[in-house]
Amino acid sequence: MNEGFTFHFSPQPLLIVISGPSGVGKDTVVRAMQARGLPIHFVVTATTRPIRPGEVHGVDYFFVTHEEFARMIEQDELIEYAYVYNDYKGIPKAQAREALTSGKDVVMRLDVQGAATIRKLYPEALLIFLTTRTEEELVRRLQKRHTETPEGLNLRIAMARKELQRIQEFDYVVINAEDKLDETVDIILAIIQSEHHRVHHRKVVI
Amino acid sequence: MNEGFTFHFSPQPLLIVISGPSGVGKDTVVRAMQARGLPIHFVVTATTRPIRPGEVHGVDYFFVTHEEFARMIEQDELIEYAYVYNDYKGIPKAQAREALTSGKDVVMRLDVQGAATIRKLYPEALLIFLTTRTEEELVRRLQKRHTETPEGLNLRIAMARKELQRIQEFDYVVINAEDKLDETVDIILAIIQSEHHRVHHRKVVI
Repeated sequence: MNEGFTFHFSPQPLLIVISGPSGVGKDTVVRAMQARGLPIHFVVTATTRPIRPGEVHGVDYFFVTHEEFARMIEQDELIEYAYVYNDYKGIPKAQAREALTSGKDVVMRLDVQGAATIRKLYPEALLIFLTTRTEEELVRRLQKRHTETPEGLNLRIAMARKELQRIQEFDYVVINAEDKLDETVDIILAIIQSEHHRVHHRKVVI
Repeated sequence: MNEGFTFHFSPQPLLIVISGPSGVGKDTVVRAMQARGLPIHFVVTATTRPIRPGEVHGVDYFFVTHEEFARMIEQDELIEYAYVYNDYKGIPKAQAREALTSGKDVVMRLDVQGAATIRKLYPEALLIFLTTRTEEELVRRLQKRHTETPEGLNLRIAMARKELQRIQEFDYVVINAEDKLDETVDIILAIIQSEHHRVHHRKVVI
């Protein structure tokens, strides 16, 4: 009889949400994470918003028509969806489920309301709140986009202030400082690595 | 009037316990962490056990007499102490308190029973369980020390089996695999970095 212990280390895949106010750099951070080539599945969000310069269909987003989006809602193909700033965004369910089943961590970008929805659906999800250090920096970044009307900009700022107040609903907060993208990604990857070593797993079933 | 937000990021210093069965490599791991030169205070434990080759008084341990140790207990100078394998070990209270007050993370090595005591005293402490992957590896490492009698070795193995069963009392588990010391240290440092970004701080007051 062998009484000896063997330690089986089999970390559960994580459902990771990268969230934060509009303009904080969620897309840029997620793209930089992807560039590290790690075994992580990055969920491609479906959206009805127009494609921006440099974006690729099926990579950055699935750019779909309002009709197609309506069909996805009706057929319950989305984990979560929202109508924000005149456009729809949604997370395809099958995609996230398949990645988790294959043992891969799953990363999704979501606005703060969407992150809260995920928390309700999957309490064990890992929620990371991205922020700039100051409001001035957020304004500067939104202005750089050149896609905002003054009214649109003011709306986003007002939203950001509200969203900052919901930070307590998140697990971690990371400041995405200007010109410190690599540092932001390093911290997020340290959080993910660290969570794999938790004794009490965040097992999520979609 | 300025309504703009500024995000104040002021992480609380952590009280970190590196624990695990005897022979798993706690001392080696802590020494390797120290070599990274980070702003972390490593608590120097007081012990009545004899100094081993290569160890330095005041660096690896405070090697004290039984009389001096008794005095420290009486004057309530120790956070925690234990009598294990015929020797006393204890954590000087003032040392840990001063480091935390100065804003530094504090790392202490403790056996599994000591870690459990710290959890009771300071529920917000960060408890990391070090283990080998298999019992055979643990036996090999204990034998390499050449400081064990066969009875001593058997006692440690029996203890290790019991201690493995207490892993649920810890926050994180890290396998200290053979010849992977750097990896072990990287993971522990990722855990510490990650914990600094938690929304819900582990504030400890000693």
